[in-house]
Amino acid sequence: MAKILKGAPVVEMLNERMTEDVRSLKEKGIVPTLAIMRVGERPEDLSYEKGATKKAEAVGVAVRHVVLPADITQQALDNEIMKLNGNPEIHGVLMFRPLPEGLDGERARRLLSPEKDIDGCTDGSLAGVFTNSEVGFPPCTAQAALEVLDYYKVPLRGKRAAVVGRSLVVGRCVAMMLMHRDATVSICHTKTEDVASVTSRCDVVITAAGQLHYYGKEYANESQTIIDVGINWDEAKGGISGDVDFETVEPVVKALTPVPGGVGAVTSCVLISHVVEAAKRAMAGAAEAAERE
Amino acid sequence: MAKILKGAPVVEMLNERMTEDVRSLKEKGIVPTLAIMRVGERPEDLSYEKGATKKAEAVGVAVRHVVLPADITQQALDNEIMKLNGNPEIHGVLMFRPLPEGLDGERARRLLSPEKDIDGCTDGSLAGVFTNSEVGFPPCTAQAALEVLDYYKVPLRGKRAAVVGRSLVVGRCVAMMLMHRDATVSICHTKTEDVASVTSRCDVVITAAGQLHYYGKEYANESQTIIDVGINWDEAKGGISGDVDFETVEPVVKALTPVPGGVGAVTSCVLISHVVEAAKRAMAGAAEAAERE
Repeated sequence: MAKILKGAPVVEMLNERMTEDVRSLKEKGIVPTLAIMRVGERPEDLSYEKGATKKAEAVGVAVRHVVLPADITQQALDNEIMKLNGNPEIHGVLMFRPLPEGLDGERARRLLSPEKDIDGCTDGSLAGVFTNSEVGFPPCTAQAALEVLDYYKVPLRGKRAAVVGRSLVVGRCVAMMLMHRDATVSICHTKTEDVASVTSRCDVVITAAGQLHYYGKEYANESQTIIDVGINWDEAKGGISGDVDFETVEPVVKALTPVPGGVGAVTSCVLISHVVEAAKRAMAGAAEAAERE
Repeated sequence: MAKILKGAPVVEMLNERMTEDVRSLKEKGIVPTLAIMRVGERPEDLSYEKGATKKAEAVGVAVRHVVLPADITQQALDNEIMKLNGNPEIHGVLMFRPLPEGLDGERARRLLSPEKDIDGCTDGSLAGVFTNSEVGFPPCTAQAALEVLDYYKVPLRGKRAAVVGRSLVVGRCVAMMLMHRDATVSICHTKTEDVASVTSRCDVVITAAGQLHYYGKEYANESQTIIDVGINWDEAKGGISGDVDFETVEPVVKALTPVPGGVGAVTSCVLISHVVEAAKRAMAGAAEAAERE
């Protein structure tokens, strides 16, 4: 019987930590503030916006909604991003993409300041993940995987780890983050021959393949911990399932995250925690600048 | 008997390609130009400068020497870097580091434009390697390893590869570059337990451990190609040797690079090729801008 690594207690711990941090920031006169920039009225953006707002406000993070018309010009959009970059009262910016047709999402991504890039999408944030420095923020899902491993005290140093998937939002970043924590990391992807022969030798596996139930017991071993990042529509169940074939894998591994109820829940929490962290960094930066004066 | 992957023919091929590219750029009125920025008179900088100048001029790349006094102020140094960034006649900048005491090398690195960062040291270049996009240039040694593999037509797609070492100038970058070429990559480092058990399962190994002769035959297999990036002082020989214990490993692998005479020779050539590439990109960028007018 494997240990089930649920996301809920991780979320609870992160929320407590954030609430504490926000309180202490407010004592210093700083209200961590998230700007959500939405262009147009895509239903999925609206739904995500609502959820993020609720989560932010629950821990005391303020939210400003920057809603722009779908027919905004590129120049006007650029200006809005620059205004958010320059506004010291905004600590983090969540920018919905894709943008409506005619607008250059790649340009928007490049314009955003890494310091406010709580979603980990700018080159600055990605360079930060690659070089292991505090530039920007890691993509939230990648960090959520690490938060789960940390919460459940899964050892990483010197351990064999495999990542399945090499996307910039998960696989590639999580591989670097595991490596920075001294794991020996192998990166598998669509061109890997015999993924099971790689993962079955590993103590820790992060699967972000996005392929329903592909991860059978031939991929696993009894000392393995699996973080399942897959979010796949499961017709048979009429709901969401992960990459792991839970029923056959759960009995043969040491620990694994469920889907739903695993990493997914932690991801949106990490997004909000980046706003708090950005506010803390801004405060530290301001203090340093004051000292230099 | 393994195939010995010498650097010389790779250098020759790269030089021919560069000479051709430079000729065609000059026909369009562009002289690819390298600026070498040196602060002070460190003997190793002077020696490297002399070598790079010779290699550049051999293929028609012009060199400008920007020599600054060791007691220059940070502000004056910043200005010099900004001038080089802004000068359209300079395509690549080689900036010697470490800088003399009192000057901030990290600040200098951050100031340099990724477009001119032929040494692959800026965050822009590193983000480019990580995201597989044409921002800046990869560190030269990492690219040299790939150039050798390409020249000798070593297949990478779907192959198992291991990188020993996780430095930003070699290991981490070469791992990403192998992954972008569809290899399944494992990254080993000082905290890896039993490196041999990882490398011995691999078709391609890049070793950048910087440890004389540590790589014995237990790390190898008969279908393995090894790129030895190690440059270690070999007391017994009174010269330079690699990470690989050549005598015992050469008989049991498919192919390997010698040290000296392997990757090292290719590295400085890659540096010059980045100047040519930067000039080509600048020209393409100018043409695009003209079209938009």
